[in-house]
Amino acid sequence: MKYEEDDLIILGHGSGGALTNQLIKDVFQDAFGNPILDELLDAAVLEVGGGRIAFTTDSFVVDPIFFPGGDIGTIAVCGTVNDLAVSGAEPLYLSSGFIIEEGLPIADLRRIVQSMRESAKDAGVHIVTGDTKVVDRGSADKVFINTAGIGVIPDGRLLSPRRMEPGDVVLISGTMGDHGLTILAQREGLSFSTPVESDCAPLNRIAKAILEAGGDGVRCMRDPTRGGLATTLNELAVQSKRGILIQEEEIPLRREVVGACEMLGIDPLYLANEGKVIAVVAPSVADSVLEAMRDLPEGKGSVKIGQVLGEEEGLVLLETDLGATRILGMLEGEPLPRIC
Amino acid sequence: MKYEEDDLIILGHGSGGALTNQLIKDVFQDAFGNPILDELLDAAVLEVGGGRIAFTTDSFVVDPIFFPGGDIGTIAVCGTVNDLAVSGAEPLYLSSGFIIEEGLPIADLRRIVQSMRESAKDAGVHIVTGDTKVVDRGSADKVFINTAGIGVIPDGRLLSPRRMEPGDVVLISGTMGDHGLTILAQREGLSFSTPVESDCAPLNRIAKAILEAGGDGVRCMRDPTRGGLATTLNELAVQSKRGILIQEEEIPLRREVVGACEMLGIDPLYLANEGKVIAVVAPSVADSVLEAMRDLPEGKGSVKIGQVLGEEEGLVLLETDLGATRILGMLEGEPLPRIC
Repeated sequence: MKYEEDDLIILGHGSGGALTNQLIKDVFQDAFGNPILDELLDAAVLEVGGGRIAFTTDSFVVDPIFFPGGDIGTIAVCGTVNDLAVSGAEPLYLSSGFIIEEGLPIADLRRIVQSMRESAKDAGVHIVTGDTKVVDRGSADKVFINTAGIGVIPDGRLLSPRRMEPGDVVLISGTMGDHGLTILAQREGLSFSTPVESDCAPLNRIAKAILEAGGDGVRCMRDPTRGGLATTLNELAVQSKRGILIQEEEIPLRREVVGACEMLGIDPLYLANEGKVIAVVAPSVADSVLEAMRDLPEGKGSVKIGQVLGEEEGLVLLETDLGATRILGMLEGEPLPRIC
Repeated sequence: MKYEEDDLIILGHGSGGALTNQLIKDVFQDAFGNPILDELLDAAVLEVGGGRIAFTTDSFVVDPIFFPGGDIGTIAVCGTVNDLAVSGAEPLYLSSGFIIEEGLPIADLRRIVQSMRESAKDAGVHIVTGDTKVVDRGSADKVFINTAGIGVIPDGRLLSPRRMEPGDVVLISGTMGDHGLTILAQREGLSFSTPVESDCAPLNRIAKAILEAGGDGVRCMRDPTRGGLATTLNELAVQSKRGILIQEEEIPLRREVVGACEMLGIDPLYLANEGKVIAVVAPSVADSVLEAMRDLPEGKGSVKIGQVLGEEEGLVLLETDLGATRILGMLEGEPLPRIC
């Protein structure tokens, strides 16, 4: 589908789901198209100066800017570190670009910057270049942060959904939907007897452990952010031209997340995560990779949730708790704007 | 000076002038400080995989998004290409992060993206990774774009204000203030008998010509964007710990720019440029560099405007048309928000 002359941008274009993919295809790829961009990976892989580097960018517009488990600064560093890490790169350097609304308390800015410093230290990366713009009151909402990141990819490492084979195992590193639900609960003023926190955290340590344990048997990794587990799995299915079968009962969900999602009428499989990794690995290394993931605090809830199929090309199938199987589609529309 | 607990961000913090420098020092450097960031160059210089790369970022919030001579897309590509080029790097790859306000016509987005495509082609760079966020109506103003860029720095090349010596010559590539005045005129609804256009254009070709003609005699280059010629020269004076003497009558200014600035009560030396380069070169190569600059269409208005002093450390002196000499300070406050 092509956009009409008088079509407008709607919130769904920023969902990370089907509408975002359509906009990228019709507007951005159509103009910028080149073999590197067309891969549509979390990070571009570039040949520079005899080696390979990964290069990625994300803008962060999360509302509210402070939330349980982190703030816009935490997520701005972790989001970009994680895109590099799941690409198989060792994250090294970040840029940071601030767009600040006139009137933001400098104390808030300082708190955000302090979170960025801590997350960068935690991930072992350096923020080496930056930019600050200020816009008049009402032309932005408090603060937006862009980070771009550079990492080095070791020689010989190739992670790609194209390497996925029937029988490969799908692993995830813990509970789904915690970040998205936390943001939503903040906005809706919900409170829980057991508080829910964003999971935002750097994934480079667990990504490294996965690669060390699984070697060449690691086909690809992803972090299920905007659009959640369901949307990320759909992207993998499309890019690999394989089917993926997921067992619903294996997907770890916090009780509070399930309860709140039922109340709000949303599906936790479409909620963003900011500190979880999906790994698709060969069956021969699945157990050793799972063990390596569980050895880390950030991966202690790791589980197998499904496998790659030789059929159902491009589709994600969900085997429900009741034993039925249904298609798990990509996120449509935008239930939750400004989640990251 | 340290900020107080209840200080707020004001527009001047985004001016690129004295307030921006203070915010960077007190808030960002204090938290992120590392030897690469602390250089405060237009681009960070990184050792990656055996070679040196330059890495830079800028966010663009210009208002209006379309203006004579370009649009926010043109400037988003040229701004980052130029930061790489004046660092002595060959610009190669860009990222682009869009923050879009709900309701933006997709036709406007398409036009902006088309400008980015053309500027990237003109500069010989590829846009290889990107991100799109959409925020609700009223939470941003139409569209903001961040670009980050990567370039390669040839072995042995070292451009730095620290290499400036007394007697070095200051060259600029053409008229000052055209971009800033164009934006201002659009906002104020001013019109001119001879229309003024933004100068936004990639500088990598002229930067390369300067380096080829001047070799090791090229001390450093800068593009005088936010804060204009006066602010950029002040940064050079501070970073080089030298004085700089500028002859006012040598600075090329369009008649329309002079007239409009007089009417509006602003100084064209503080107006942003988006397609002009300042080069500080050894006297022995000044004439050959100037000739090489003038050989290019984007440098046909190139002139010598001053020289580096062995005294007046950290200051820029302006020898006026009347023969008097005064200190030309850094931009204070923010007369012109959202100029780029």
